[in-house]
Amino acid sequence: MSVAPDPAASIVPDWLSEPGDLNALCTKLWPANARRNSGGEIELGGLWASELASQFGTPLMVIDEDDARSRMRSTLEAFTAAFAEAGTSASIYYAGKAFLTGAVVQWVREEGLNLDVASLGELTLALRAGFPAERIGFHGNNKSVAELSCAIREGVGSIVLDSWYELERLTTLAREMGARPRVRIRVNSGVHASTHSYLATAHEDQKFGVTIADAERMAVQVAEENVLELLGFHSHIGSQIFETSGFLAAADRLLDLHDRTSKAIGRGLPELNLGGGFGIAYLEHETPLAPAHMATELARELAAQAAERGIPLPHVAFEPGRSLIGPAGVTFYEVGTIKAVHVGEGDAVRHYVSVDGGMSDNARPALYDADYTVRLASRASTADAMLVRVAGKHCESGDIVVHDDYLPSDLALGDLVAVPATGAYCHSLSSNYNYLTRPAIVAVRHGAAELMVRRETIEDLLMRDMTFSAAPTPHEQEPTA
Amino acid sequence: MSVAPDPAASIVPDWLSEPGDLNALCTKLWPANARRNSGGEIELGGLWASELASQFGTPLMVIDEDDARSRMRSTLEAFTAAFAEAGTSASIYYAGKAFLTGAVVQWVREEGLNLDVASLGELTLALRAGFPAERIGFHGNNKSVAELSCAIREGVGSIVLDSWYELERLTTLAREMGARPRVRIRVNSGVHASTHSYLATAHEDQKFGVTIADAERMAVQVAEENVLELLGFHSHIGSQIFETSGFLAAADRLLDLHDRTSKAIGRGLPELNLGGGFGIAYLEHETPLAPAHMATELARELAAQAAERGIPLPHVAFEPGRSLIGPAGVTFYEVGTIKAVHVGEGDAVRHYVSVDGGMSDNARPALYDADYTVRLASRASTADAMLVRVAGKHCESGDIVVHDDYLPSDLALGDLVAVPATGAYCHSLSSNYNYLTRPAIVAVRHGAAELMVRRETIEDLLMRDMTFSAAPTPHEQEPTA
Repeated sequence: MSVAPDPAASIVPDWLSEPGDLNALCTKLWPANARRNSGGEIELGGLWASELASQFGTPLMVIDEDDARSRMRSTLEAFTAAFAEAGTSASIYYAGKAFLTGAVVQWVREEGLNLDVASLGELTLALRAGFPAERIGFHGNNKSVAELSCAIREGVGSIVLDSWYELERLTTLAREMGARPRVRIRVNSGVHASTHSYLATAHEDQKFGVTIADAERMAVQVAEENVLELLGFHSHIGSQIFETSGFLAAADRLLDLHDRTSKAIGRGLPELNLGGGFGIAYLEHETPLAPAHMATELARELAAQAAERGIPLPHVAFEPGRSLIGPAGVTFYEVGTIKAVHVGEGDAVRHYVSVDGGMSDNARPALYDADYTVRLASRASTADAMLVRVAGKHCESGDIVVHDDYLPSDLALGDLVAVPATGAYCHSLSSNYNYLTRPAIVAVRHGAAELMVRRETIEDLLMRDMTFSAAPTPHEQEPTA
Repeated sequence: MSVAPDPAASIVPDWLSEPGDLNALCTKLWPANARRNSGGEIELGGLWASELASQFGTPLMVIDEDDARSRMRSTLEAFTAAFAEAGTSASIYYAGKAFLTGAVVQWVREEGLNLDVASLGELTLALRAGFPAERIGFHGNNKSVAELSCAIREGVGSIVLDSWYELERLTTLAREMGARPRVRIRVNSGVHASTHSYLATAHEDQKFGVTIADAERMAVQVAEENVLELLGFHSHIGSQIFETSGFLAAADRLLDLHDRTSKAIGRGLPELNLGGGFGIAYLEHETPLAPAHMATELARELAAQAAERGIPLPHVAFEPGRSLIGPAGVTFYEVGTIKAVHVGEGDAVRHYVSVDGGMSDNARPALYDADYTVRLASRASTADAMLVRVAGKHCESGDIVVHDDYLPSDLALGDLVAVPATGAYCHSLSSNYNYLTRPAIVAVRHGAAELMVRRETIEDLLMRDMTFSAAPTPHEQEPTA
């Protein structure tokens, strides 16, 4: 049987299947407490899209608090249980760079996780929100003296040493301040994971960490100088990781290093930190590992790797961010313009749906060519599907929110659309391009909404401009924690 | 003669020539008033790098005010003169999205240019800084009712109609408000220019504008309804354009449209706007056209195109941003970490130089894979060259400021380095990733520095977080101009 070629087929990416039920919310992509209610609207944590939009305005980022907390809790439980089985303990550091606000810090604390920060700003926020310093890890390839001093003074749980310069800087500060900060050494292991595959080379071409050989020398020096307390080694192999093999390849290298170093310094190092990067699904066909699955597999294989070497498996730590908060977030936009664009020379039509946000609230499509999905939020529809590209309102052609998906063809101005899986790296990377103000962020739970971050105003944006503002602030910021 | 292969050669991009004089400042890349002074330091507008850094902190963006003003003035003069020769007049709109502050608005006004804005925020800033509304053009693919109302109320000089929806929205508002806003119609001409080449298709696959056929229908409707005042058509073909052929291809299509429409409505449309996108050099080998050259060529060819059609050439407008402000800006950073990384399996070494800023103050390398150059700023050096990659301090491997260049091998912590050509799309696209605070921006001129935008503080960053702040602000912003 011959079928007439679909003119749109040439502009649809392979992974985008035929349009299915446009009202369905794929559980893989949406927060646990998202559903379409009896009125056909998307409801999150018991609150209707239209209620949220009218109370807080659009664009609006909504976080399903129970979903986020449950991801934190279940990940910690899964890793704790699996590694207990393997004869050791585990901790989970929430990677603050993914999404950090005062409320998130409190969730992380209450759910029993540790916290990774990577700047004086993140550290200050965490401490002010009441996070215990001893549960904080401090990352960064170029920490300033101000950052290291603050970390020492506040008693941060661990500082991840990233270079010989930093070892010297920290040692000097620790001596001056009469403190004994605890450190991990970040290793450029040569293992780099990307989705569905990993690469292992001699050394990865990147700014973080020191070579395996340097890490050993550095550890011995730290032990001999006895100014800092050495916890162990750290590696981070990438992001959006969908399988355990990359972690195991890194662990293989790090356990050798761990073993040699423990022998060289005459005591077993207490920890091994394998970093973060656990992937999430942005598209329906993507299949991240469940935390329990990942934990079981990693614990079993790491135990085997340790057994091969005849050494005990040390305390193991991981640092996920995206997998704990990404799927809990949904961004709502209002549709302002719809345009059918004939594409190329043929009959293919792409509908550009322009919304009231864009690359300022979600830079990932422009930065990483990242894909998202979109759903009509303020009502259900049984209209036919139309192929859409959701564009932002910035004066830039690359300002796209969703490259390819379907929306109902009766989509109208004023409709709300929702983009799921925006909890991680959207607020973090947001900008004021075109002097757009950044969205409010709201946590929803059991039918109640709590404002986490208020919407930015134009007044906020003009505040630093000396044409409109009286007083400069000193450029030297005192740590204010 | 056989030469031993340079192990670094494999990691050096083709365009990066052998290291030359590492102290030289290529005039193409640096502002007019940049030089190395007798002490070997880079000096901008008569102020030493070290003075600026100690007064305002780093990272620091410095704008050579005379250089920026002179680019604005000379571009306007060149186009005015060339098009006068061609029997018509020309105007230059500064594209505010490239870099907009209160001070920049005043320079644009004083140098006699018009101004493009693309949001309520940009419009508010411009009006508050005293820019005459009638010299403002308002762009955007999805202007809100609030934006259009403000533009009408304030008497903005022109609104660029981007869709049928917008025509309806604006017509309704104009009737309600008893006003007669002036409009251009943005055409998706199918011509798209990228550096050194352009593409011409039936329709470009993008969110902006309407088709040529729709533009004609829309113009006739606007003329018949007689609610809005029609100025003419507008097209924008891309950015970083190094030759005139793309503009001429677009003009060829737009002049046909202009001619047909003028006849259809029975009067000659007064204007033709060919948009912006004039390129600048980020690297030494790049060769943008001088404004005078571009103006002469465009005026001559457009006059010929009009003559072929037997019509008068209307008033012509262009909208450059980057070419007016980009080369006037230099970003200074302090070196905090230097790391020699063996790359791949061979002997090639790349020196990662980590500085105190990064993708938060310059997103272009991460967003567009953009290349920049770097120079040691706080002193001269006669040391050998080393291949470097300047990295930021963000917790992300893609956080690169300069992918490939050379710096002297005696580079030390605390040295200042400078990255030229950062005036455009750096401040505009800046973020607070990792809770880094955005740099101060300073204008220098004749040995004096004036703070344009004060450095952001951690307090500023926590201001919107409801954990630390008392009162939310209303989400509906009243236009405050």
